[in-house]
Amino acid sequence: MTVHYFKPTLYHTTLGAHEPVLRITDGDSVVTTTLDAGGCDERGEQVGPRPNPQTGPFYVEGAEPGDTLAITFDHLWPNRDYGYTSTVIATNVVDPDFARELPPRERAEWSIDRARGIARLIKPETALGAFTLPLDPMLGCFGVAPANGEAIHTSTAGRHGGNMDYRGFRNGVTAYLPVAAPGALVFVGDGHAVQGDGEMAGTGIETSFEVRFTVRLLKGRKINWPRGEDETFIFTVGNARPLDQATQHATTEMMRWLMSDYGMDWVSASTLLGQCVRYELGNMYDPAYTMVCKLPKALLVSR
Amino acid sequence: MTVHYFKPTLYHTTLGAHEPVLRITDGDSVVTTTLDAGGCDERGEQVGPRPNPQTGPFYVEGAEPGDTLAITFDHLWPNRDYGYTSTVIATNVVDPDFARELPPRERAEWSIDRARGIARLIKPETALGAFTLPLDPMLGCFGVAPANGEAIHTSTAGRHGGNMDYRGFRNGVTAYLPVAAPGALVFVGDGHAVQGDGEMAGTGIETSFEVRFTVRLLKGRKINWPRGEDETFIFTVGNARPLDQATQHATTEMMRWLMSDYGMDWVSASTLLGQCVRYELGNMYDPAYTMVCKLPKALLVSR
Amino acid sequence: MTVHYFKPTLYHTTLGAHEPVLRITDGDSVVTTTLDAGGCDERGEQVGPRPNPQTGPFYVEGAEPGDTLAITFDHLWPNRDYGYTSTVIATNVVDPDFARELPPRERAEWSIDRARGIARLIKPETALGAFTLPLDPMLGCFGVAPANGEAIHTSTAGRHGGNMDYRGFRNGVTAYLPVAAPGALVFVGDGHAVQGDGEMAGTGIETSFEVRFTVRLLKGRKINWPRGEDETFIFTVGNARPLDQATQHATTEMMRWLMSDYGMDWVSASTLLGQCVRYELGNMYDPAYTMVCKLPKALLVSR
Amino acid sequence: MTVHYFKPTLYHTTLGAHEPVLRITDGDSVVTTTLDAGGCDERGEQVGPRPNPQTGPFYVEGAEPGDTLAITFDHLWPNRDYGYTSTVIATNVVDPDFARELPPRERAEWSIDRARGIARLIKPETALGAFTLPLDPMLGCFGVAPANGEAIHTSTAGRHGGNMDYRGFRNGVTAYLPVAAPGALVFVGDGHAVQGDGEMAGTGIETSFEVRFTVRLLKGRKINWPRGEDETFIFTVGNARPLDQATQHATTEMMRWLMSDYGMDWVSASTLLGQCVRYELGNMYDPAYTMVCKLPKALLVSR
Repeated sequence: MTVHYFKPTLYHTTLGAHEPVLRITDGDSVVTTTLDAGGCDERGEQVGPRPNPQTGPFYVEGAEPGDTLAITFDHLWPNRDYGYTSTVIATNVVDPDFARELPPRERAEWSIDRARGIARLIKPETALGAFTLPLDPMLGCFGVAPANGEAIHTSTAGRHGGNMDYRGFRNGVTAYLPVAAPGALVFVGDGHAVQGDGEMAGTGIETSFEVRFTVRLLKGRKINWPRGEDETFIFTVGNARPLDQATQHATTEMMRWLMSDYGMDWVSASTLLGQCVRYELGNMYDPAYTMVCKLPKALLVSR
Repeated sequence: MTVHYFKPTLYHTTLGAHEPVLRITDGDSVVTTTLDAGGCDERGEQVGPRPNPQTGPFYVEGAEPGDTLAITFDHLWPNRDYGYTSTVIATNVVDPDFARELPPRERAEWSIDRARGIARLIKPETALGAFTLPLDPMLGCFGVAPANGEAIHTSTAGRHGGNMDYRGFRNGVTAYLPVAAPGALVFVGDGHAVQGDGEMAGTGIETSFEVRFTVRLLKGRKINWPRGEDETFIFTVGNARPLDQATQHATTEMMRWLMSDYGMDWVSASTLLGQCVRYELGNMYDPAYTMVCKLPKALLVSR
Repeated sequence: MTVHYFKPTLYHTTLGAHEPVLRITDGDSVVTTTLDAGGCDERGEQVGPRPNPQTGPFYVEGAEPGDTLAITFDHLWPNRDYGYTSTVIATNVVDPDFARELPPRERAEWSIDRARGIARLIKPETALGAFTLPLDPMLGCFGVAPANGEAIHTSTAGRHGGNMDYRGFRNGVTAYLPVAAPGALVFVGDGHAVQGDGEMAGTGIETSFEVRFTVRLLKGRKINWPRGEDETFIFTVGNARPLDQATQHATTEMMRWLMSDYGMDWVSASTLLGQCVRYELGNMYDPAYTMVCKLPKALLVSR
Repeated sequence: MTVHYFKPTLYHTTLGAHEPVLRITDGDSVVTTTLDAGGCDERGEQVGPRPNPQTGPFYVEGAEPGDTLAITFDHLWPNRDYGYTSTVIATNVVDPDFARELPPRERAEWSIDRARGIARLIKPETALGAFTLPLDPMLGCFGVAPANGEAIHTSTAGRHGGNMDYRGFRNGVTAYLPVAAPGALVFVGDGHAVQGDGEMAGTGIETSFEVRFTVRLLKGRKINWPRGEDETFIFTVGNARPLDQATQHATTEMMRWLMSDYGMDWVSASTLLGQCVRYELGNMYDPAYTMVCKLPKALLVSR
């Protein structure tokens, strides 16, 4: 149950079997930092590559393909006083003819008041006026090394996690990822101070983060897609295009979870989803889109 | 501001320019009933065709193509003590190879306690045990006559509304629909006592309803896709396949709404969506899927 | 085996259960004309509505839901000396960011030399110079009344046929359509003098046509999607979005055809498709896209 | 203009920046062999990993990101006397409910008569009888190292090429690939003796190959997606899901090609595609689907 304080000096733009920066053990926590999506640190200096440079990988002793790694986000918080967003909605999330009318993209700047927990739009001036939002920090891109020896770019997502840009990966949440390489090889990066569903403008409020996470190794436990839970929900994540397929992946993974862990048969699980499921849109911007299938834990208690 | 009490005697399985059953005026309310998706009434007798038979159409005096019709759902409630669902998740919402494992679909039966506002699964017996859910009644299929003289089946959805199966069309919500035929021609049907996102098993708890709705005619006001609002949110609805396109329609419609009615320019509207938008999945079962784009009204007040 | 000479005076922009203009019998032929997609006739006068106005419907005596109607295109040919196309590729068939660069659409004009069987681009002047193509006349939109009492717009397609914009519906081809209303109700229109795969600019060379077709009624023969054949191929047609689903429909229909009519089991039909199938893109412009699954007849002879 | 005879001893299941097995130069040819999709060689011995093991990579001297590599397939031919296919069409290419009826997949065996250039189905026995097809050998999976330091699995495809399973990559064809890593790093594998469009059963006739290819380095020439040509056609390739997006990529790439190399403006290129383009389906089985956009060279001559 060691807490490791790790100061990164190099960053990756693929998730793959890179040289580990630190070896940790089941139950350990890591306190570290991440760069913003553009590779800038807490001082605003470009010290890493783009996009979505990853801190890590952290090698988890004993983790092997076929295991599951649980990563709890103990603390996700900006470590500087500003962030940026894109000013224009993405071309692929609106009708093609409407997309032709969109102005060029620029960069909007936000101040981040970490003490008060709010972000404020600084420029450009907009009809939103003094636009202030409560912080809801999340990691846009994190994961483990993918299967089959692949190295996958931080612009996209898959079974290994990656650039899911789902605002549900926030403080207090535990993410579950399928281990596909020895040591699992955990990567974290791409903090967003605030982000809407779908990352529709291609950004959240991009900033550098201080991050604390804790790993647990679930030996011999096999999952197919990222999962997660917080106090009130369990959820599964599908990453693919079109959204239909992302939703199929997430729904299939939830069905499997209900049937393997919650004692449900086909009818029970189907009935629960039919009447009670919720879906949330991770990103609809990256090469792979992200859909999340959620169920309230209150419905899963033994009866 | 008349309240019309209308007892239907025939039902439609297309939304089109059918003979009106009643003529109403801007501000009027209609109190009527709807059959369940299988054509059965409050006594359980099959008195209408399948699927999703519609009550109506109601002709709104003065409504013309290019106007918008607002329909407020004043009261949606089951008018009988039972409903039914499908027991198995739909083949198209799970991975194709997983779909091969699904058992055959049967019908589950639910009791509906209208006084206490709950539904309870009666059979089959499942691992869910005594599974009870609070009622959250909604209309699965409603709309106006489509444009271009089309008559569109109640299994699908489009700009005219139709079988959207979105649980957000519930009590207290106002839906906005683009008028495309003289008199608008309002149809209502397909009540669900409870339904999860996506209508993933192909049903909500299907039952017959008592319905009260109020219409307002917004002359000269043009919209392209269904919209809605309640006390806390405004939302827009896209109906298409794949979900990507449904989302594009809903997002485009929201952008247009923000820019035409809320004084926003491209950057303001994009920034608001980028950081604050929420998406909800209507149905992912019918020929056209439904995605909903939502924004909290609290963010839209003048500053 | 009567040949009916029919001069149309009204045209439809939905395929539905409209009043028949003529009653014909199994084996009969109809000689008639069609307007161009913009409603103009052989003299260039606008005498019908837009888009894709249909001549018909022709009522086939004895045709009932569950039957199949065969329509052989005996003669499809322009009946005037010019046509038009769109000058710019459609926004939905290119990458969204590329679509932003496209110039506005205009109308290109073509001369049609019916005697020599060629079309020539007249204006605008382009880098193509004196651009001349051999005529390959086809019907972009034709079909029967759809099922369920629907009336479906001539901008889109479905099981009933409609706006498939497939260049394979050309002279000498027989199309098969599922009868879904009494009398089948045959519609024809939207002649293209030449068209590429996908109708990528949203048009073929649009012109008015003289049309001769012959119907055969296949009693009690049920199909689910349009089919066709010529001397060398059989083919099936799926109409849906995305193309994936259109392809699924076409492939499923081909599997069913092989297994019901050609004595094949699962393995035979799969093996044939696996090694020998061809696909062609109908339209990728209309609300429903069109994919065609083809097999050479030479592979289907009894062995 | 050296001809290199290379006998592989190790194989890769990712395309990435692996250690080169040979360094070659612009204009050189390589004569080598490839394993079948299951890792078996000309003797039927499993000597490599699955799936689609790649021979290579071959380092092309002087190739740098931003260049284009041309690979001409001088000779693709089986080097053994048998191959195999899957017996059942893939679940994702048919309607979901139809997919539920499919029997389990097995392996069909084919003899390959290299002298006569034919393949014959040996078992199982099917309604196809003595089913014989002319060989049309092609490479299912080949490419260069992808951009951004990615290593991409041989089950899928992208801008770098990969598992496109397009029967148009056959003898005499030149493929063009965007160089994204120093030396380009050419991989070849996954020979199919015969394959239909779409690789609908998930296989062609899988066998080991003898391969001869010649490279040409086009310095400073930038392309975005694979391209190709033979004596009569030029073509571009998009790899993505859904097919809509694959088609968008291929069409965009063709538009760019016409405008950069053939002196066309927007209207010329759009007009040519609108009336003359052909599309072919590569695979619809792998994680990324493949669509091909083709134009006859006869239409591209200067006028």
